[in-house]
Amino acid sequence: MEARELDGLLISSMPNIRYLTGFSGTSALLLVTANQPCLITDFRYKTQAGNEVGGIARVMIESQSLWSGLWRLIPEVFTARTIGFESAHLIHRDFERLQDAGKQWHWKPTVDIAEGLRAQKDADELILIEQAIAVATGALQSVLPLVRAGMTESQIAGMLESALRERGSESLPFPSIVASGTRSALPHARTSSRAVTNGDFLLLDFGSVVGGYCADITRTVVIGRCDTRQREVYEIVREANARSSASVRSGMSGREADAVARDFIAGAGYGEAFGHGLGHGIGLEVHEAPRLAMSAEGLLPPNAVVTIEPGVYIPEWGGVRIEDDVYLGGEGSRILTSFPRELLELS
Amino acid sequence: MEARELDGLLISSMPNIRYLTGFSGTSALLLVTANQPCLITDFRYKTQAGNEVGGIARVMIESQSLWSGLWRLIPEVFTARTIGFESAHLIHRDFERLQDAGKQWHWKPTVDIAEGLRAQKDADELILIEQAIAVATGALQSVLPLVRAGMTESQIAGMLESALRERGSESLPFPSIVASGTRSALPHARTSSRAVTNGDFLLLDFGSVVGGYCADITRTVVIGRCDTRQREVYEIVREANARSSASVRSGMSGREADAVARDFIAGAGYGEAFGHGLGHGIGLEVHEAPRLAMSAEGLLPPNAVVTIEPGVYIPEWGGVRIEDDVYLGGEGSRILTSFPRELLELS
Repeated sequence: MEARELDGLLISSMPNIRYLTGFSGTSALLLVTANQPCLITDFRYKTQAGNEVGGIARVMIESQSLWSGLWRLIPEVFTARTIGFESAHLIHRDFERLQDAGKQWHWKPTVDIAEGLRAQKDADELILIEQAIAVATGALQSVLPLVRAGMTESQIAGMLESALRERGSESLPFPSIVASGTRSALPHARTSSRAVTNGDFLLLDFGSVVGGYCADITRTVVIGRCDTRQREVYEIVREANARSSASVRSGMSGREADAVARDFIAGAGYGEAFGHGLGHGIGLEVHEAPRLAMSAEGLLPPNAVVTIEPGVYIPEWGGVRIEDDVYLGGEGSRILTSFPRELLELS
Repeated sequence: MEARELDGLLISSMPNIRYLTGFSGTSALLLVTANQPCLITDFRYKTQAGNEVGGIARVMIESQSLWSGLWRLIPEVFTARTIGFESAHLIHRDFERLQDAGKQWHWKPTVDIAEGLRAQKDADELILIEQAIAVATGALQSVLPLVRAGMTESQIAGMLESALRERGSESLPFPSIVASGTRSALPHARTSSRAVTNGDFLLLDFGSVVGGYCADITRTVVIGRCDTRQREVYEIVREANARSSASVRSGMSGREADAVARDFIAGAGYGEAFGHGLGHGIGLEVHEAPRLAMSAEGLLPPNAVVTIEPGVYIPEWGGVRIEDDVYLGGEGSRILTSFPRELLELS
């Protein structure tokens, strides 16, 4: 804060608040000062905030509005002139509150302060991510043998999500994608009531959460026997995944990491069919810094955990994505997802 | 737009975009003009946007940034001077883009334009909400007989979520809350690995989604036999729920609706223990307009669907919440959740 010439910093992003204080509720403001930080939340979280935040921050329970709590709090805790806020998280309406009810202070936009800290995982965080990955891969392992032609995507997603819960996932970090047949060509398909049939690609993209930390995994399998073109496309994606995981390092730019997969897929003739970025950080959020994409000039920090998820999507035919979670450690990278990447044909 | 002196309106809230165009992806901007609206999204949604939006809006696919697409689009489609934006949804960083790259136009904050339309459900929307409610109540009905002392909250949540999927829920609108024993006293508990035991309250707050529309339901049951105090607290909440559902009407303020439950619970001596609002609208989002709370002065619009969810929470002892979904029709209100509200003792 000193380097940025801030007397204090207002944090309004819930994942950032959780990272800094341990508070896991859905509504709060955190005021960080040189002394003790203060968390403002509402009645629903009275007991929880006390338990979770403990001595890390003072907790204020506000029955009406978090903002009226903030206006009372600031003069109580310091003689602030300049207070930072999170430009990428504060909505315009709340920015107007700063300009209006908070006009006696100077408000300065900041970006990526907490996000930069969060991108570099410590040992405890890595353990939780690895536990979440074990939950996710275990659930997939238990469910794939039960998948049969005739089941709907939604039924398969239900089996998978139940297995995730059974193994201890606290919630689902995003709606699981179970997409079959031509629907697998939609990179962000929603799970539908379509019944899977023999010869379909079945793409499963799902996550799990342990101790607040996320795993994010995708596998694509075939129901019954694959045909030649399915095998060809699958192997291109598998090779792109393998090359990327083997070469990704902290210190590379997100663009360089992305280019490994992109150039390989383009060289195989499918450049147009890989239209999304190679990956993203995972942690308290399932999409967080850093980004691995054509437009990501930033360097990948040490100790980040990122997804490597190349894909090839051919409209009206089908798509393949293979997504692993990779730790960018000091002595090279390590693939955290041990689930097989060979094409599985479900009999 | 004419009444608000706007030449166009930039919609950045995804649920609002879905409401106005049918597009269900996770990343887009919508520019509404007097002529054809235009949806800007990215590669991942190329096929999906074409299918979902059809003739309602022109679709633009942007490979780099939605914003650079917007700057190209505006001069192409109209001679705009003043364009509205959504103050409650646009983050400060994107507001700065409007002031910077978009500075040749005048940007005017708006609130609740699409939200106001969304609060009043039409017949098709009501049907989808009723289907989502049927999925949710059916799932609860199928799972409660399987709950046994010794199961963990997480296992019970897994069974419930699997049943929701099995019955056709497209996703989970929020992480299901399964909270037992003293944890039921946390109004927004997370599901944990705690095993339920005889004599526990078991609170289940969960939702389902059909055609994009949400149901939101809570029931609280007892594992084994309830004791006198559990019965007493439960009956207070049940009566508060019944009185509220019977009296809530469009045209009342959210505060008046809330007061029915609040006054009853306070009269029974538990006023301090009901610290959240009575309810909220449901639709494409599981929390949307209108609000039913002490601070909600706005009138409840006709054809809204709202939750009625009084609760009593006693720290270190336990809590009860009973939540129904109620339609505020022209000829009086109608409770949509048919699941029993009597205290169930699971043997």
